[in-house]
Amino acid sequence: MTAPIDFYFDFSSPYGCLAAQRIEALAAKHGRSVDWHPVLLGAIFKATGGAPLTELPLKADYARRDFERSARFHGIDGFRLPAKFPIATQAPARIVLWLKGSDPLLAARVAKALYRAYFFDGVDISSPERAAAVAATEGVDAAAARAAVDDPAIKEALKDEVERALARGVFGSPFVIVDGEPFWGLDRFDQIDRWLASGGF
Amino acid sequence: MTAPIDFYFDFSSPYGCLAAQRIEALAAKHGRSVDWHPVLLGAIFKATGGAPLTELPLKADYARRDFERSARFHGIDGFRLPAKFPIATQAPARIVLWLKGSDPLLAARVAKALYRAYFFDGVDISSPERAAAVAATEGVDAAAARAAVDDPAIKEALKDEVERALARGVFGSPFVIVDGEPFWGLDRFDQIDRWLASGGF
Repeated sequence: MTAPIDFYFDFSSPYGCLAAQRIEALAAKHGRSVDWHPVLLGAIFKATGGAPLTELPLKADYARRDFERSARFHGIDGFRLPAKFPIATQAPARIVLWLKGSDPLLAARVAKALYRAYFFDGVDISSPERAAAVAATEGVDAAAARAAVDDPAIKEALKDEVERALARGVFGSPFVIVDGEPFWGLDRFDQIDRWLASGGF
Repeated sequence: MTAPIDFYFDFSSPYGCLAAQRIEALAAKHGRSVDWHPVLLGAIFKATGGAPLTELPLKADYARRDFERSARFHGIDGFRLPAKFPIATQAPARIVLWLKGSDPLLAARVAKALYRAYFFDGVDISSPERAAAVAATEGVDAAAARAAVDDPAIKEALKDEVERALARGVFGSPFVIVDGEPFWGLDRFDQIDRWLASGGF
């Protein structure tokens, strides 16, 4: 099959950011493209009873250590947990969703730029103005991007995206669905690689 | 360094079982031995606010799928989630801890036999009698193993082991500590491999 693989992510998810640096190369290796789905983990956790890694005792300390260790392990330079973490991610998610409607490839480039801005450069992309300014570095009209954040139709579209994600079983970030098979986490990329190569195992 | 690597596990943990099939080969590759630490996830979750994977909506369905897929991915044949799952694991944990006092290598063999009995053959090792019978297949005196389950000193030793694990930051299973560096999950075995080879990264 040559259907795109579905990549669900929240802009405040460190492993989502690391996965975003790798997902296109992994898909391309198997002749696939990537469908980028920004979602809101806050809404997903509300529905599923999940909790951010960094809010649980012991697990929080471990996670903070593992984020940067995993970045080093995967050869991703420059990643560091921002001082302000986690953040609300409606603004960047809405901008990406708005762009997807007209130009999915541009939306993917902007998604990667937003992740880098937050996790590599410490830019607080929860701010609609700052998120729009990051989009502008990829050639997007900043005023239009800023307006999209408050557009009721885009707000509704993001809610729908989250609902559809939950309906497909998405409970975390990153979350990848390959031909109906769900994979949670950057640490399932080796399984995704084999699944794409063999159509299952 | 040549200190043993510390392997923490709960007998009701599917990924713990899969990791137990691989940990000794991984350690031996780097000239290390394994110190097997049975712990009780129930007590650990009580202290940390954690929850079993299979009690969370969506995550539960995913986990049940991922357990067996991960077994196949790692080439571990015969693994299947038992009908009775999860189970209380005081009995097998106490038997292993009791054996460790006199014969750590025998304790490790019995630990692997107990995991296989539960996750490969569906034996309910929460029963002290059945756990003792499994230990007997490795040459242990069944009556002595059965008595160890009710021995106040062994009960206390298991509580102490759990307390020490929590003090070292152990919040899940499997959990490996290599020269002070913590790794949670079978999916960190690739990072452990590199850490053991290079002393860090």
